[in-house]
Amino acid sequence: MESWATFGSDFYLDLSGTGGLRSRLTRSLRDAIRSARLAPGTRLPSSRTLAVDLGVARNTVAAAYDELVAEGWLTARRGSGTRVAQRVTPPAPALRQATVAQSMLDLSVSTPDITLFPRTGWLRSARRALTVAPHDAFAPCDAQGRVELRVALAEYLARARGVRADPGRIVVVSGTAHALRLLNVLVPGPFAVESYGLGFHRDLLSATTPVPVDDHGVRVEYMPAVPAALLTPAHQFPLGGPLHPRRRADAVEWARATDAWVLEDDYDGEFRYDRDPVGALQGLDPERVVYLGTASKSLSPALRLGWMVVPDRLVDPVVALKGESEQYSSALDQLTLADFISSGEYDSHVRRMRSRYRQRRDQLVAASPVPVSGLAAGLHAVLELPAGREPAVVRAARAAGLGVSGLDHYRHPDAAPERHGLVVSFGAPAFPRALAPLCRVLAEHG
Amino acid sequence: MESWATFGSDFYLDLSGTGGLRSRLTRSLRDAIRSARLAPGTRLPSSRTLAVDLGVARNTVAAAYDELVAEGWLTARRGSGTRVAQRVTPPAPALRQATVAQSMLDLSVSTPDITLFPRTGWLRSARRALTVAPHDAFAPCDAQGRVELRVALAEYLARARGVRADPGRIVVVSGTAHALRLLNVLVPGPFAVESYGLGFHRDLLSATTPVPVDDHGVRVEYMPAVPAALLTPAHQFPLGGPLHPRRRADAVEWARATDAWVLEDDYDGEFRYDRDPVGALQGLDPERVVYLGTASKSLSPALRLGWMVVPDRLVDPVVALKGESEQYSSALDQLTLADFISSGEYDSHVRRMRSRYRQRRDQLVAASPVPVSGLAAGLHAVLELPAGREPAVVRAARAAGLGVSGLDHYRHPDAAPERHGLVVSFGAPAFPRALAPLCRVLAEHG
Repeated sequence: MESWATFGSDFYLDLSGTGGLRSRLTRSLRDAIRSARLAPGTRLPSSRTLAVDLGVARNTVAAAYDELVAEGWLTARRGSGTRVAQRVTPPAPALRQATVAQSMLDLSVSTPDITLFPRTGWLRSARRALTVAPHDAFAPCDAQGRVELRVALAEYLARARGVRADPGRIVVVSGTAHALRLLNVLVPGPFAVESYGLGFHRDLLSATTPVPVDDHGVRVEYMPAVPAALLTPAHQFPLGGPLHPRRRADAVEWARATDAWVLEDDYDGEFRYDRDPVGALQGLDPERVVYLGTASKSLSPALRLGWMVVPDRLVDPVVALKGESEQYSSALDQLTLADFISSGEYDSHVRRMRSRYRQRRDQLVAASPVPVSGLAAGLHAVLELPAGREPAVVRAARAAGLGVSGLDHYRHPDAAPERHGLVVSFGAPAFPRALAPLCRVLAEHG
Repeated sequence: MESWATFGSDFYLDLSGTGGLRSRLTRSLRDAIRSARLAPGTRLPSSRTLAVDLGVARNTVAAAYDELVAEGWLTARRGSGTRVAQRVTPPAPALRQATVAQSMLDLSVSTPDITLFPRTGWLRSARRALTVAPHDAFAPCDAQGRVELRVALAEYLARARGVRADPGRIVVVSGTAHALRLLNVLVPGPFAVESYGLGFHRDLLSATTPVPVDDHGVRVEYMPAVPAALLTPAHQFPLGGPLHPRRRADAVEWARATDAWVLEDDYDGEFRYDRDPVGALQGLDPERVVYLGTASKSLSPALRLGWMVVPDRLVDPVVALKGESEQYSSALDQLTLADFISSGEYDSHVRRMRSRYRQRRDQLVAASPVPVSGLAAGLHAVLELPAGREPAVVRAARAAGLGVSGLDHYRHPDAAPERHGLVVSFGAPAFPRALAPLCRVLAEHG
């Protein structure tokens, strides 16, 4: 039969076997170290603590420790206590390759410049938020999301994006992908999607049918009578145009006439560089448009925080579907973001980043040997290429160590190729170093 | 020093403070709008007029206006000038009812005492983690989870739970529910489950078939030849017994003989009160057992952090399935938890909580007028009742304002009732206040 005893907080020692208590304890500790259950560097409890836990004399534990120090299993240093010796280096973990090799200058993703994440401001908000949070912040969270965040978002979205939001219609999600997964369950397909867009998003939908896009966004007149459309009205992804005002009205009219939903992916609406901010389409008809926003472009995709503003009659179904089993967002991060928004830090950060991105955009335009489009907003632009040149340029760019994708990468598989170019993220941290080699590639192959 | 300038007829702008003139002007206007000193709809003077009033360059004023338009505080329309935006004060949020009414003393969930969440230690870890984090911590996260957390968990789980873990086999998830959703896709059903357990977990699996349980855990001899079994070996939920050592070996043998997986739900393995700590079943066969752990009991369910330790040949399928679209866990929280574990704070917190829960468990045993079982571990116990009494006691308890469930609530729908009693969370924050009324109900109706 085995006999065990607790060890410090969470370790168990097998004190079974023959011999006196001291030798059984010594053996058990030694076995634990040898088998790496006690890892090198692990700090052991004081002999007093362990003695109390085991219900034995402190001298017994101290003697076992002394013996293991003598044998080299443990080290004892004044001030740092008794630790497992650094004898065996554990094997290096088999770490996975990142999708883009480290040596690539990655311009392929429309990511913010994460080297400028506002660490200090975020920590300040975290401290304020956790200090004043009610106890229930640490209980299972409301499936709809923390009310503090929903209140802060409602104010912000109304002000900055023209969204008709109140906290009762906001649902916190883990990001746009999470929102689309939920909506795909609630809305039967197929979904009308822009003929150029994120394949990653299309793949989350049961079935999609492409609608052509031009410099003024999606061509609403070609939208079929389907139950829903996924659009990027503020800044078409990836072409970059804002949806033309007349088409905005037409899109809402389409939804009313066909009794359909518009899912508005407002992924980077904050980053607008020119005179005319484009509000959210949702403001035109909050009962037909589901607004999808995210902190992934404005702050960091590592936060995993997004939000939906849903029509009244979708609130209950969305919350019920998300329910207990899809509570993915940390309540502490939600509270931190709420403070970050309501303290004005979010505005300041967006303002700083906007000015930074605008500079970079201007650098790109100044340096590019080919025409650049999609420039009024966002973190990426399109470097236009003549028909037929795109594959060669993408290959040459990759050979030069630049992680880029062509427009074809974003094309719906059922849509004919209409536009040609490179989609380049000037928001990416690598942009400043990548600009010169990119322009060389374009000059040579574009 | 304050500097004032007239604005329209009777308005004043405070241009004191730090920063350049443009940012002071922007800030001052923003504050005036936020505080409603400048009402929605108010028309601002033209930038030329205000520039003359202030004695500054017109560009400075125009830039401030642009900024505030971009932030949504102002609107600029050709022909109607610049105005304060029509922000709607958000209505008081329509808050959803919590599932248990506020006035109930809730003992129904096996939740930790969230009033004791280690706010200070957590913030300390957050500060350390965010200060030293590499920039890529703010980029999209590895689908497997941050390596810092996986390294910390590997050491901890080996030491505290006897898990044979290395960071390359650990996958960070949002919690046990997320892990089960992933496994349900990879493993065809039906799943053998314990006849008493969490209905919430059963519902995540495509099909389940119940296996009887007794005081020594699941009766392995009744496990059918199915592709997988979901078990709670350390502390059967909700009955509370640890799986008998012989049955532990038999469960692994079952998996080998039927080429099946065991999913080990180790939800509260840290909280063991008696002499016999029970290590993870996974230690017996890491190629057959998928280990599922969570911070929900040890810290807080609001963190949404859990982990799987998966057999080698499941690592790639799990990571591929989770992939880009189910990256739910905040990288910042992952880094914070990694620091919290490796700095020893996690051990200290668990030790403090264990001692607190042990006291409460002893209070429950001392006060209960009916037999109490499932006491060796965890945050809940079973107050045993004679056959037939359970429904009346549950009703009486609820009438007395106590949120409790009977064992029948946890019974698999295809299993015959075998045990009767109340499942009571002594970890719940309400426990100290609920104990006396609970005992009165039991004395009267039990």
